Amino acid sequence: MTQPATTTPSKHIVALSGGIGGAKLALGLDRILTDDRWADHGLTVIANTADDFEHMSLYVSPDIDTLVYTLAGLANTDLGWGRSGETWSFMQAMEKLGGDTWFNLGDGDLAMHVWRTSRLSRGDTLSTITKSICQSLSIRADILPMSDQPVRTRLRTDRGWLDFQPYFVGHKAEPTVHEIDYRGINDAKPAPGIIDALTSPNTTAIVICPSNPLISIEPILAIPGIRQAIKDAQAPVIAVSPIINGKAVKGPTTKMLRELGHEATAATVLQRYGDLLDAFIADPHDMKSLQSVASGVSLISADIIMMSLNDRERLARTVMDVALNSIA
Amino acid sequence: MTQPATTTPSKHIVALSGGIGGAKLALGLDRILTDDRWADHGLTVIANTADDFEHMSLYVSPDIDTLVYTLAGLANTDLGWGRSGETWSFMQAMEKLGGDTWFNLGDGDLAMHVWRTSRLSRGDTLSTITKSICQSLSIRADILPMSDQPVRTRLRTDRGWLDFQPYFVGHKAEPTVHEIDYRGINDAKPAPGIIDALTSPNTTAIVICPSNPLISIEPILAIPGIRQAIKDAQAPVIAVSPIINGKAVKGPTTKMLRELGHEATAATVLQRYGDLLDAFIADPHDMKSLQSVASGVSLISADIIMMSLNDRERLARTVMDVALNSIA
Repeated sequence: MTQPATTTPSKHIVALSGGIGGAKLALGLDRILTDDRWADHGLTVIANTADDFEHMSLYVSPDIDTLVYTLAGLANTDLGWGRSGETWSFMQAMEKLGGDTWFNLGDGDLAMHVWRTSRLSRGDTLSTITKSICQSLSIRADILPMSDQPVRTRLRTDRGWLDFQPYFVGHKAEPTVHEIDYRGINDAKPAPGIIDALTSPNTTAIVICPSNPLISIEPILAIPGIRQAIKDAQAPVIAVSPIINGKAVKGPTTKMLRELGHEATAATVLQRYGDLLDAFIADPHDMKSLQSVASGVSLISADIIMMSLNDRERLARTVMDVALNSIA
Repeated sequence: MTQPATTTPSKHIVALSGGIGGAKLALGLDRILTDDRWADHGLTVIANTADDFEHMSLYVSPDIDTLVYTLAGLANTDLGWGRSGETWSFMQAMEKLGGDTWFNLGDGDLAMHVWRTSRLSRGDTLSTITKSICQSLSIRADILPMSDQPVRTRLRTDRGWLDFQPYFVGHKAEPTVHEIDYRGINDAKPAPGIIDALTSPNTTAIVICPSNPLISIEPILAIPGIRQAIKDAQAPVIAVSPIINGKAVKGPTTKMLRELGHEATAATVLQRYGDLLDAFIADPHDMKSLQSVASGVSLISADIIMMSLNDRERLARTVMDVALNSIA
């Protein structure tokens, strides 16, 4: 399955991704792009960084880490985050020291946070650091943070304004969300390479992964210049629904949508991405409700649940087929 | 062996200590001060912090950590540093990420560095943080960093100026040392409580532990105010030799002394501490050479090697006997 090191792909798939759900599809794409029929394609993943935070002076980038571990074959598929075969001496010792323990950090995972924090403090950018980590771990895909400037999702809840990780991990996503803000978004620039990747004539498709639209995809789209670049792109834009029959595959997507006054449906997601989309891949159950809102968007019915590795590859093949049919 | 929580010791032993050798004697003192005859005594350890450094943005304080782990019963006695039962997932992952691996950090040990760094970045002082860590780990003794301001031992060597840890760990103490500098020493103040502890009428003895004089004890003595406070102290000042018959019990003490043009003997150490001392405890082999330089200093011959826990307690009892005889 490994790509010969001498081959530089001439074409690209560009994926926008949050953490777990997005990383599953990214892994599927990464794997099938080694097939002969798509061997001229490389994968570029634009990762949400609005979930990033500083925890005990360590810079933690959960979505980049999930993508890195997933694409490096190091992901803990039982937990859904962190590294496989992880040990927990750090957390045990931290508890005895009376330190912060609300956010779990595995021993091996800590290497990522410490090394990244160290390099940031030396003046390296998040995208430079991410690139060298991907190289060290022999990851084929390019993982680009959405921006090298800090953007932070904050939520106005019934317990006041909360930063994302304290809301999501600290409060287990229980508070009711009234408003979402991406702090710093207007000062953020797309990381180097993003606009080129989106608008390149060699880009075969722009894929919006099945991630939470509110906290994973829309922060990426909200960075000045990215939404317009996607609109201007020659490549078809294909989204995969993160919602099946009113249920999110993972995480608090449907709860947050409802609390913000939206229906928690695939149709809502399609409408939020609006005029960006050329195609929307959703579960067969959702086709009927989608038809009334899908003006100008091709609807593709597919099994979008990704339990097994085979599921990921199958959905990635569907994405590639849609992309190539759209071009034709 | 545990001291009743309701007893606040009315008298104190104050020890000046570096890492391993000093921590052994500190442990001996800590343990014997629970004996009925000395139960009115508490132990205050003034720890060298000139070995501290920032490693990958983490603040590491090797001598405080050795003292903390030793007095908490968590020390790795096989390695001589770090924690017992340590795991190494962090270092393994760091190596795969292409990060810095010249300084070993165990998974549990990392909790100390991360928590301390986090609290320092919030504005807490090193002494406040050390105190709360000691409380969390139920350490009886007070461990005081020599200063809350940064002091850094630097060595002019045949490979240029080196910070201490790169010299000691990175270069395995191999370069020849021509000069030692304690950067920041003139701007450093004794940490809160140090001058009071040294000069209190309730202090029974000031003990200079068998640590490297050049890099562990003399940085403490060089902080403006500390040497004078020791001179002014009512309590007898008792040093334990770190050198036996021309050999350092541990570490590069004799090599550094020779490179700086000194004889690597107990007599050299006695002379360096000079007019501070009331008593000097050394190995029987060194008594003869000490007699010619020990003007005004009581020489005590004792077995000062501390291999077993019993050795540590035995030497601590010798120190206490000398202290109480000096007072009488």
